[in-house]
Amino acid sequence: MRLVDAHSGLAVLDRDECLARLRTEVVGRLAVVHAGAPVIYPVNYVVDGEDVVFRSDPGVKADAGLRGPVCFEVDHLHRPTKSGWSVVITGRLEEARPRPGTDWRDLVELPLEGWAGGKHQLFRIVPDHVTGRQVGASQLKP
Amino acid sequence: MRLVDAHSGLAVLDRDECLARLRTEVVGRLAVVHAGAPVIYPVNYVVDGEDVVFRSDPGVKADAGLRGPVCFEVDHLHRPTKSGWSVVITGRLEEARPRPGTDWRDLVELPLEGWAGGKHQLFRIVPDHVTGRQVGASQLKP
Repeated sequence: MRLVDAHSGLAVLDRDECLARLRTEVVGRLAVVHAGAPVIYPVNYVVDGEDVVFRSDPGVKADAGLRGPVCFEVDHLHRPTKSGWSVVITGRLEEARPRPGTDWRDLVELPLEGWAGGKHQLFRIVPDHVTGRQVGASQLKP
Repeated sequence: MRLVDAHSGLAVLDRDECLARLRTEVVGRLAVVHAGAPVIYPVNYVVDGEDVVFRSDPGVKADAGLRGPVCFEVDHLHRPTKSGWSVVITGRLEEARPRPGTDWRDLVELPLEGWAGGKHQLFRIVPDHVTGRQVGASQLKP
């Protein structure tokens, strides 16, 4: 039985569904807090285990993200039917190292797309909480 | 001549281009800071003048957004060509009142889609900064 968010009326996705959907997309939005204000950055990402891995260069995104909590959002929207899903992760950012049981080659060879190019450092979002909601049609299941 | 972001190599969109693109989409992502952490919420929105208007209910999104700065992001992605654009607004949130020279009816009759439904209070994001980037193909211009 599908759970429904009592506040929003949206269908709730469990953690496994959220991770499965994260694996179907390649662009998400990272939010960090910089000087007390939220800042959103679109990034290409790939799921590694239950973490999110992306590339960046030194700058506010990396500096602020490494200093405090981060949020990461991915969605898939179908405007004609006003339907879609979104997954939101809260967690911490760290410089990417291979996960236990994997090595650097596994990390380097992750199928991480780079639309913008020129970004050299790998970062990992380690989730604390993974939540997901779906609105409308079920054809959006992965 | 198209400006290019020296850091990312992405084409820079000027404010008018950003606002024009915002008007072509209906779902964006609002980020607020709650208890020191960034939180992202997808919302249906409409552009009113140069502001972003959306509906919400009482809760963290509204409370945290009214207390501090907010960030709002909209993008349009075309995965087959690894291209797309994103617009990021930083600004403040307020309970929506009609803009100068408009009345409540204008506000109520804004073509604001509501995919999730059941959200009764109107909020307005008043931008301080509007920035945009484009990666890849030009067919994504509105």
